[in-house]
Amino acid sequence: MTTQGPDPSISATHGYISDKDRYLARLKRIEGQARGIHRMIDEDTYCIDILTQISAITSALNNVALGLLDDHLSHCVTGAVQDGGAEAEAKIKEASDAIARLVKS
Amino acid sequence: MTTQGPDPSISATHGYISDKDRYLARLKRIEGQARGIHRMIDEDTYCIDILTQISAITSALNNVALGLLDDHLSHCVTGAVQDGGAEAEAKIKEASDAIARLVKS
Amino acid sequence: MTTQGPDPSISATHGYISDKDRYLARLKRIEGQARGIHRMIDEDTYCIDILTQISAITSALNNVALGLLDDHLSHCVTGAVQDGGAEAEAKIKEASDAIARLVKS
Amino acid sequence: MTTQGPDPSISATHGYISDKDRYLARLKRIEGQARGIHRMIDEDTYCIDILTQISAITSALNNVALGLLDDHLSHCVTGAVQDGGAEAEAKIKEASDAIARLVKS
Repeated sequence: MTTQGPDPSISATHGYISDKDRYLARLKRIEGQARGIHRMIDEDTYCIDILTQISAITSALNNVALGLLDDHLSHCVTGAVQDGGAEAEAKIKEASDAIARLVKS
Repeated sequence: MTTQGPDPSISATHGYISDKDRYLARLKRIEGQARGIHRMIDEDTYCIDILTQISAITSALNNVALGLLDDHLSHCVTGAVQDGGAEAEAKIKEASDAIARLVKS
Repeated sequence: MTTQGPDPSISATHGYISDKDRYLARLKRIEGQARGIHRMIDEDTYCIDILTQISAITSALNNVALGLLDDHLSHCVTGAVQDGGAEAEAKIKEASDAIARLVKS
Repeated sequence: MTTQGPDPSISATHGYISDKDRYLARLKRIEGQARGIHRMIDEDTYCIDILTQISAITSALNNVALGLLDDHLSHCVTGAVQDGGAEAEAKIKEASDAIARLVKS
């Protein structure tokens, strides 16, 4: 029931699809923030002000990641557990690895 | 000797200016990564793959921040300490606050 | 089937119980590291060496947390999803909140 | 002027010495928190409650580290910059490395 690749016809099985527009808007904003930091460096903006912007964009990215992860647990992982078997275990291992990367990045 | 705003004539007092091209290239790449994540969400890419990309961009941003901070300590803060007085204390307080934001973001 | 409080008779329902001895040994070590940092401060050890120890203990704590979280997803959350209903949703919300606290701490 | 090892006679050159009692008290509390987590695991406390405690101790350790780092910049690094020369550069490099470890741990 859960697929790993993009397939428009069944994309609704991806957890985050319900909030897709909101996620897209957040990524647009993050892209704009990255462009803003590029401009700040280009214009020799004071270092500390740039660091503040980097902290802001990192927080925004963490919040997107935490939202996607929650969606993933609620949909993909839950679906795999309901289907049962080795697939469920694999999904949880995969989610745990992603969480570890987030905590350590 | 240290200025807070962008002023082309004395911009060389900003620590990061020596590596400016390298920083600009890194920010271009980060902006491209943000655009890539936007596209992944738009195309319903598998959640975990998006999380991996977010960890990568967060690491890249942290490395830029740590580089800027090192430049800042080596130039701005060092300059202020050599000039002496309350300015030096203020610069160190400001740097410590920026470090705290980085550690907690 | 899943309980929230300590109850020896059914403690095996907690996910981490299988590795309990290993977790206890790791916490003993972490407690010893904290005591070591206390002694370093008391003996006026060089600041940077203390910071290195703090980074080590933080990493050790993160690794314990990630292990417990993986166990929790594999056992408690999986059990709740199999039982179905609102309980499953509550468990996932609770796990997501814990992940957010870890990422932000 | 700055020494790396513990030497009671000149320990006052270490930045954190002024708040030493406060740091010692904080470390005592952190050690108690680690012992508390050990007990929670031993008593099969609910996983999520243990994770909450781990986040709390990690935050406490980060705050100690940020305090020590601020003291270090204000005293050791400032002292080295005033003395001038290669020592100052080495101290800043060392501080930057410690900051990187903190951000990444």
